[in-house]
Amino acid sequence: MSKFRARILVSLRPSVLDPAGEATKTAANQLGIKGLSKLRIGKSIDIDIDALNEEEAKKQIELLSDRLLANPVIEDWSMELLQVV
Amino acid sequence: MSKFRARILVSLRPSVLDPAGEATKTAANQLGIKGLSKLRIGKSIDIDIDALNEEEAKKQIELLSDRLLANPVIEDWSMELLQVV
Repeated sequence: MSKFRARILVSLRPSVLDPAGEATKTAANQLGIKGLSKLRIGKSIDIDIDALNEEEAKKQIELLSDRLLANPVIEDWSMELLQVV
Repeated sequence: MSKFRARILVSLRPSVLDPAGEATKTAANQLGIKGLSKLRIGKSIDIDIDALNEEEAKKQIELLSDRLLANPVIEDWSMELLQVV
């Protein structure tokens, strides 16, 4: 068994509105932060997982992301996978 | 003016409980995902900002993160900053 560490980033698809992000952008302007042209809020999930090999770890994380972490109708996800040595 | 792109990662401090992460971990086990030893959910914020230079962009993003994106009592944040060329 090897230990893997992954970070999964879940973001709204570009075509999907982000009301929380818009509200934060408005608040940032009121706070005096200049030049902000985009602000979108997504999720970042940090995972430690034991698996036989990298392929197996990827498979488990893909299942997890597709089924539990992201809503495929409105969200995309990407992963960074590291092996702990 | 230069264009900068930043990703801010906001995570719960290690000492703070993450009930959503725990619930997701339990659901993952029920789904048959093996070997998961850690699952913590945070936020990922993607930003485009115009600023005179890197230092100015960093200053604005630090203000934004400290005041609007993270709750410093229970959360830490980190940023990756890129200049768009």
